[in-house]
Amino acid sequence: MPKEVNYNYAFVFYDVNEKRVNKVFKICKKYFKHHQKSVFRGNITPANLIKLRAEIKKIIDEREDFVSIIKLMSENSFREETLGVNANNSESLII
Amino acid sequence: MPKEVNYNYAFVFYDVNEKRVNKVFKICKKYFKHHQKSVFRGNITPANLIKLRAEIKKIIDEREDFVSIIKLMSENSFREETLGVNANNSESLII
Repeated sequence: MPKEVNYNYAFVFYDVNEKRVNKVFKICKKYFKHHQKSVFRGNITPANLIKLRAEIKKIIDEREDFVSIIKLMSENSFREETLGVNANNSESLII
Repeated sequence: MPKEVNYNYAFVFYDVNEKRVNKVFKICKKYFKHHQKSVFRGNITPANLIKLRAEIKKIIDEREDFVSIIKLMSENSFREETLGVNANNSESLII
């Protein structure tokens, strides 16, 4: 188990019924600049993470919908490789 | 920029045309045990990551499809919170 640390970066992805998916999308869009389909990501303060979670919790049906929040210490905690259309926005690949 | 380190854990998500999406799904399933919709995750060796990437690259149309591989040092590099139907499989939340 990781020690208690501050998480200041997050990925959020979800599988939410179409009746509610736009609302969840709009909530996430308030907190994150960047998204691909239903995967949001970006810097977020611990305080905003609590707000985000509370807003999502109000909207979703917990028996049917699913939301995952992956918390990281910073954007240096991971490295991204992309393939395809958005590849120029990120690390380029030499295979 | 992070230093050169070994990444042994990955998240993979994609936005791939439906003509090819099943093939990408099947490739990812060979390398990862766990997935939700089009988000795969799990421990993966650097060698397998190279193989995964090469297999995906053969299938996708890079002008139309998009695949993101988020590499982490280990599963201790992040912490997950889930809301909704699969919440019991992960860290429970007290809000």
